[in-house]
Amino acid sequence: MAKSLLIVGVGFMGGSFALALRRGGFKGSIYGVDIKPETIDKAEELGVIDGGGTELGLVQEIEPDYVVLASPVRTFRGIVRGVKPFLKEGAVITDLGSVKGKLVYELEEQLGSRFVGSHPIAGTEKSGVEHSFAELFEGKKVVITPTESTDKEALEEVVSLWKLTGGRVEFMDPMLHDWVFGAVSHLPHAIAFALIDALIEMSDGVDLFKYPGGGFKDFTRIAASDPVMWRDIFLENRNNVLKAIEVYENSLQKLKELIEDEREEELTEYLKEAKQRRLSLE
Amino acid sequence: MAKSLLIVGVGFMGGSFALALRRGGFKGSIYGVDIKPETIDKAEELGVIDGGGTELGLVQEIEPDYVVLASPVRTFRGIVRGVKPFLKEGAVITDLGSVKGKLVYELEEQLGSRFVGSHPIAGTEKSGVEHSFAELFEGKKVVITPTESTDKEALEEVVSLWKLTGGRVEFMDPMLHDWVFGAVSHLPHAIAFALIDALIEMSDGVDLFKYPGGGFKDFTRIAASDPVMWRDIFLENRNNVLKAIEVYENSLQKLKELIEDEREEELTEYLKEAKQRRLSLE
Repeated sequence: MAKSLLIVGVGFMGGSFALALRRGGFKGSIYGVDIKPETIDKAEELGVIDGGGTELGLVQEIEPDYVVLASPVRTFRGIVRGVKPFLKEGAVITDLGSVKGKLVYELEEQLGSRFVGSHPIAGTEKSGVEHSFAELFEGKKVVITPTESTDKEALEEVVSLWKLTGGRVEFMDPMLHDWVFGAVSHLPHAIAFALIDALIEMSDGVDLFKYPGGGFKDFTRIAASDPVMWRDIFLENRNNVLKAIEVYENSLQKLKELIEDEREEELTEYLKEAKQRRLSLE
Repeated sequence: MAKSLLIVGVGFMGGSFALALRRGGFKGSIYGVDIKPETIDKAEELGVIDGGGTELGLVQEIEPDYVVLASPVRTFRGIVRGVKPFLKEGAVITDLGSVKGKLVYELEEQLGSRFVGSHPIAGTEKSGVEHSFAELFEGKKVVITPTESTDKEALEEVVSLWKLTGGRVEFMDPMLHDWVFGAVSHLPHAIAFALIDALIEMSDGVDLFKYPGGGFKDFTRIAASDPVMWRDIFLENRNNVLKAIEVYENSLQKLKELIEDEREEELTEYLKEAKQRRLSLE
């Protein structure tokens, strides 16, 4: 019999996961739970899910083989508490959250070895199920963060799901994950949000947002990301994010001093090194 | 007789200006001067210029009607000193520099009322004449910064040149220009360069540049911009850039505190406001 799957939080990411699974040949039913009834209606209308509702009690009724947490990361603990009593034996639980670290160990403690943390390195600044699309994960990295206790079979099942979506699976230690993505993803988002805040601050006399030239739109696109999702990421990965911001403040301070003191050569070196490093990504 | 034009600094911007003028129907000869002989060769080969050389003395020979400064902004003063003795009467001088402010007044003092400052709000992170293209300015804002002394006829001629390139001309006070673009362009570039510097710093144990997920590439694209051009912009617009960085540091500090103290509601508000403001640009 085809396995069934429940997505908790049918937004842009959860919706795209459902569509990607379907596109990849997933045969079972895909259900959704979301706190907003209109989201469930929309998701059904768009053919993203086969059915769903606003209550976690739905788990008891549909007995899903897979439960996928796709809501803001700070809701995971509460959802898991609500879902756990109704889970059927052998059910595999995973998530699409951008924070792993100690959250993974906590969820594992609640759910046991059949919880497998995962984090697709894909997304746009868009939110809402209406923007979801089946190709989101195609060719994108998916970081899976098993622990020593993770059940091997459950891990394989989660890897298989991701392969259906077109994602390229990689494994990483949950703690290392939070340091790495604190630096390469959470820090840039913090920086972008703060830039917009600074421009609001400086728009006192003249509306600076009337002059979005050059790379400004690209540069600030990520500041249009979902505030609740990002609040949760910043808070949940607080220590790493704060550490990364501090390193960044030092880098900015260094640059400021080079400009202030007109240290031409060192300034050129600073900018050259940044350029070289950035170009190495292309 | 068709008017002739000399571009000083035949890089990405200067080259694109030449191509855009030609595309717009400019009939006269377009010459180039660049410190690198290979740049002149390449520019001739690509049909970007009709001829040129590495010496400013060329001005005496070709007697251009227009001289366009397209090199890093801190070279302008020296170039103008070198060019001035050879300028024919009535020649109009303009520039493509990202800094105006007191530089405009200084150049005006050297050159007289037929100098007209301009700054096209167009560009990519690319540099080099081989990347230049004729459509760069199409539909883009071009900020022209006349002073009280600017010759009306010279101003009109510069506006006409920009119209040929497809640019949309706007006028702005030179000092206001530097405050506005210090905030919306120079600050984001400083921030992006510093982010790469911070990631180099943090890549001690693990190579963070192996994980350029999500919006990272878009976000840091501008850090691949030309180091010498940006060194000059940062130094030439030093006061405004430093002021903008300070406001930005405060914004980042505010965000850090909201995260550190887990002030959920205020943090959500901060991110929401940034998102709303950023979305208003689309």
